[in-house]
Amino acid sequence: MTTRTFHGIVPPVLTPLTADGEVDTASLERLVRHLVESGVHGVFVLGSTGEVAYLTDAQRDLAVRTVVAAVDGRVPVMGGAIELTTARVAAQARALEAAGVDAVVATAPVYAINDADEIERHLRAVAAAVDVPLFAYDIPVRVHRKLSVDLLVRLGAEGVLAGVKDSSGDDVGFRRLVAANAAAGSPLALFTGHEVVVDGMLLLGADGVVPGLGNVDAAGYVRLWDLARAGRWEDARAEQDRLAALFEIVFQAQGRSGDAAGVGAFKVAAQRQGLIDSTAAAFPVEPLDDETAERIEAIVRAAGLLGD
Amino acid sequence: MTTRTFHGIVPPVLTPLTADGEVDTASLERLVRHLVESGVHGVFVLGSTGEVAYLTDAQRDLAVRTVVAAVDGRVPVMGGAIELTTARVAAQARALEAAGVDAVVATAPVYAINDADEIERHLRAVAAAVDVPLFAYDIPVRVHRKLSVDLLVRLGAEGVLAGVKDSSGDDVGFRRLVAANAAAGSPLALFTGHEVVVDGMLLLGADGVVPGLGNVDAAGYVRLWDLARAGRWEDARAEQDRLAALFEIVFQAQGRSGDAAGVGAFKVAAQRQGLIDSTAAAFPVEPLDDETAERIEAIVRAAGLLGD
Amino acid sequence: MTTRTFHGIVPPVLTPLTADGEVDTASLERLVRHLVESGVHGVFVLGSTGEVAYLTDAQRDLAVRTVVAAVDGRVPVMGGAIELTTARVAAQARALEAAGVDAVVATAPVYAINDADEIERHLRAVAAAVDVPLFAYDIPVRVHRKLSVDLLVRLGAEGVLAGVKDSSGDDVGFRRLVAANAAAGSPLALFTGHEVVVDGMLLLGADGVVPGLGNVDAAGYVRLWDLARAGRWEDARAEQDRLAALFEIVFQAQGRSGDAAGVGAFKVAAQRQGLIDSTAAAFPVEPLDDETAERIEAIVRAAGLLGD
Amino acid sequence: MTTRTFHGIVPPVLTPLTADGEVDTASLERLVRHLVESGVHGVFVLGSTGEVAYLTDAQRDLAVRTVVAAVDGRVPVMGGAIELTTARVAAQARALEAAGVDAVVATAPVYAINDADEIERHLRAVAAAVDVPLFAYDIPVRVHRKLSVDLLVRLGAEGVLAGVKDSSGDDVGFRRLVAANAAAGSPLALFTGHEVVVDGMLLLGADGVVPGLGNVDAAGYVRLWDLARAGRWEDARAEQDRLAALFEIVFQAQGRSGDAAGVGAFKVAAQRQGLIDSTAAAFPVEPLDDETAERIEAIVRAAGLLGD
Repeated sequence: MTTRTFHGIVPPVLTPLTADGEVDTASLERLVRHLVESGVHGVFVLGSTGEVAYLTDAQRDLAVRTVVAAVDGRVPVMGGAIELTTARVAAQARALEAAGVDAVVATAPVYAINDADEIERHLRAVAAAVDVPLFAYDIPVRVHRKLSVDLLVRLGAEGVLAGVKDSSGDDVGFRRLVAANAAAGSPLALFTGHEVVVDGMLLLGADGVVPGLGNVDAAGYVRLWDLARAGRWEDARAEQDRLAALFEIVFQAQGRSGDAAGVGAFKVAAQRQGLIDSTAAAFPVEPLDDETAERIEAIVRAAGLLGD
Repeated sequence: MTTRTFHGIVPPVLTPLTADGEVDTASLERLVRHLVESGVHGVFVLGSTGEVAYLTDAQRDLAVRTVVAAVDGRVPVMGGAIELTTARVAAQARALEAAGVDAVVATAPVYAINDADEIERHLRAVAAAVDVPLFAYDIPVRVHRKLSVDLLVRLGAEGVLAGVKDSSGDDVGFRRLVAANAAAGSPLALFTGHEVVVDGMLLLGADGVVPGLGNVDAAGYVRLWDLARAGRWEDARAEQDRLAALFEIVFQAQGRSGDAAGVGAFKVAAQRQGLIDSTAAAFPVEPLDDETAERIEAIVRAAGLLGD
Repeated sequence: MTTRTFHGIVPPVLTPLTADGEVDTASLERLVRHLVESGVHGVFVLGSTGEVAYLTDAQRDLAVRTVVAAVDGRVPVMGGAIELTTARVAAQARALEAAGVDAVVATAPVYAINDADEIERHLRAVAAAVDVPLFAYDIPVRVHRKLSVDLLVRLGAEGVLAGVKDSSGDDVGFRRLVAANAAAGSPLALFTGHEVVVDGMLLLGADGVVPGLGNVDAAGYVRLWDLARAGRWEDARAEQDRLAALFEIVFQAQGRSGDAAGVGAFKVAAQRQGLIDSTAAAFPVEPLDDETAERIEAIVRAAGLLGD
Repeated sequence: MTTRTFHGIVPPVLTPLTADGEVDTASLERLVRHLVESGVHGVFVLGSTGEVAYLTDAQRDLAVRTVVAAVDGRVPVMGGAIELTTARVAAQARALEAAGVDAVVATAPVYAINDADEIERHLRAVAAAVDVPLFAYDIPVRVHRKLSVDLLVRLGAEGVLAGVKDSSGDDVGFRRLVAANAAAGSPLALFTGHEVVVDGMLLLGADGVVPGLGNVDAAGYVRLWDLARAGRWEDARAEQDRLAALFEIVFQAQGRSGDAAGVGAFKVAAQRQGLIDSTAAAFPVEPLDDETAERIEAIVRAAGLLGD
């Protein structure tokens, strides 16, 4: 499996939970099979959308093994190693590898206050801990620092990194990354994590997308990908506009936390489609209230995802 | 002149200065004539790139009158009213109107710590002070707050605002703004201020662009615009890639302020092309040093803008 | 008048306004006379609390001339020159000097994105524009950059700056500034702008205080100062605790902007004591609602400032 | 052991490491014995200064057991449970309790994007997991949110929290917390984490201090505490000034990360005094270079801590 293996639509799969907070493996299997059958090009388990920060090691292991089994080799599986401490990130990466993922995704350290050199040593150590490829996960809204283009492309050229999942919201930076990567011979597979600007990001050269909203409308993102590949950019834009309208589900919960509103909306939308059983959120997050859920359901219905 | 008048490539024109810090009107005329003859669809005088924050009222007035005269009605002129105090912004707006601009551009208040209601009253008051259309200028990196989609579209629907210049770097927010504006009947002309993602922003529905780099390669941006209008998106992308490579000029000055590095690079690049006489910056900013200027010149030359 | 002239309790005087937004000179005179008769050691006109950012040049000039006349030489008057553009700050500084202030207070540039060298040139230029002493105003919440200890003490040692008004909320930085200033022979008069930690700041070596709450209870701050000077630190602490309880007035307005809540609370409290006629705020800020004003009045009453 | 047990000088003990990154238990024992014999009123193991974020579970367990044994019941031991995921924080808290700490210290969740209600549930769950008291650790520079006065005092009044370690650098907020806690009957023991404003914080009512610099000069902090208790505030201020000058060691490493510069400086200073063997830092941080270490040593020597 080469770096070029990683491309296209790779949803960060939700972790469905039971009412008592355990991983609902039946729902997770069902969701993952649905994603694969919708044509996604990979799945990303244990990302922020997968509530990785809220899960214990045992829950994480159960989730990743469930996903790997459900995917059954049909598409690559990427897994997030999100933790304090390089040693623990490396341990999580090894656990992911043992569970069968095809690539590991890791951020810069959190809580610690590190500079670029320290982040580089951290990423090198995680890469050295596993045989599968490592993707850097650039998500300043959670990690509170931005990975530099220079660092990423240098580590790509050396073979330390196989790619980047960019959730920085910095489109200027992403274009600079695409250009610098191209100039270096494209060692990195470059994914954007922003689900409403996929048309433009594919146009400028993104290799793929990790759309949380892909849990809700995987087929839509696959169509968007296919239209872009076919050079039908205005049709791609129309599909993206439809998906952007659907993305309004994450803005329905007023006065709730970012995680409650975002992941919560995806869970409601997936549950209403029968993809998962429960909208339960990971402790200490509470699920969205009924009124919010109804507004979300109306948006999902308007998008044509709930039948007539 | 209707709101639809405002579209396309509208460079935020540099304010060339003499060595003693006065407006170099001969250079400014030459630059503006060059821009118009390159096919731009408008010019924006007294924006951040025009060093508005560093100029006195008299210098501002001289700059805008010089630009209006040089444009000579061939394209619309937008002018920035950037000040503390609603009353002073309104006074600047009236001065711009008296000098002949076709639209005024204003930010939320700076220094003051205001909420959305106060920002709304501020924008309403500025709009009421002039007969020409008002554009809101959303630039959190300088104003330290973000204008909301709801506020902008509501003021657009009411006719208070004619458009938005978005320099927020928030592409997700910009797409939401485009969608909400479309849903409201497109009262707003929507411009992006980010010069390296123009292809994607035009694809998703931007009405125009205010590229600082347009001072350096106006013809390139006009080509990009024309390719996009023709639906030749991959050619547009190639042109944008070329312009993005040229944009690396703003990253050459190490250890300098944002204004010194950015505006300074544009001035060096314009001066090397003979568009302006001097690279002098507005007090208290010093021009870029020779070594940096040489790196910038090399990039401009590589872009084919300096002959053989 | 030497730098040592500037010390003690120097309230940033409110700018009372009429219902139609003009400077209420009668109220301003009354307030200032009350402050001086309460024993303050100076007054600061046209600071953030004085709504300087909302006033026109003519209003500013009227305010400062009213204050200078009301003070009548009994204590020093400091005036804020808060503006975009070094040239305009210098012009404001000259206007303040012409109106009779004893010192000018200026911030780093706003809106512009400058580095330390540029800020230094800015401060030098403002200092050179006037004969009265210049104080640097360090207020990152509004200016969005922090002035460094090294810059401030160096400019103090050179005689460019006579002092600092520190509203940074960075008590660690303030102590470092006090220590570095002492090591340099104490060229700077160092004022804290935070009204609820005055006891500790005086203990560690502050030369004075610019308490917005001093508009509401000037006598309390004078007592606090006198107790500190007398080395009666635990009594000073008790007085500060009383004043800190009174400061809760600024937290009463829920869902309002920082300026509406803070200056608004001071105006309500001053108006309830008869020190000013109206709680009108500067456009585009609206005054606090009646319910909030009643909560503020109750706190002021509990502090013993409204008689029985 | 009651809440009132927790007071005074409680250094966040360094975790000395060997060259290969393992916990140097001999040095840790020596350091802790030195601290206790210097008169500190408690020690805090596995805080930010203890490099908790860089240590594995096994290393953490070794560190806390070493500290508990070295303290031998002479003063209370507080231990940090710093982790992603409520469940893992609770597990760490139980491990600390099993190792013999007298109190656990926990932050709001990191990485996750939670609101106040979610943070409250998190803290309640951690408190419920152990029988020893829980302290909330408010450190926005690492956790990127601020705990509110209302939340802290409410949880204190309910017995969920026994205290707060405030490393927020928000002295206004800390005074409000002290006042609100007093009004509620002082359920919380309130510690400041800022080592250079201890005199003022004790004056305003802090119950204790967690000074990283206490690893370098514990006796100085104990003297400062004793002087404050004796009401000798000006002598306390002089001692604090001496310690503040010593704190300049953390500003000697130019161009290094916050953790490298801060913890690194404490380690150099402790090593030069013979309190620990090595200045090794936790991976991926490198120790400070020799030139920086020499500057630090000179400051430590000037403070009288290295003999003649």
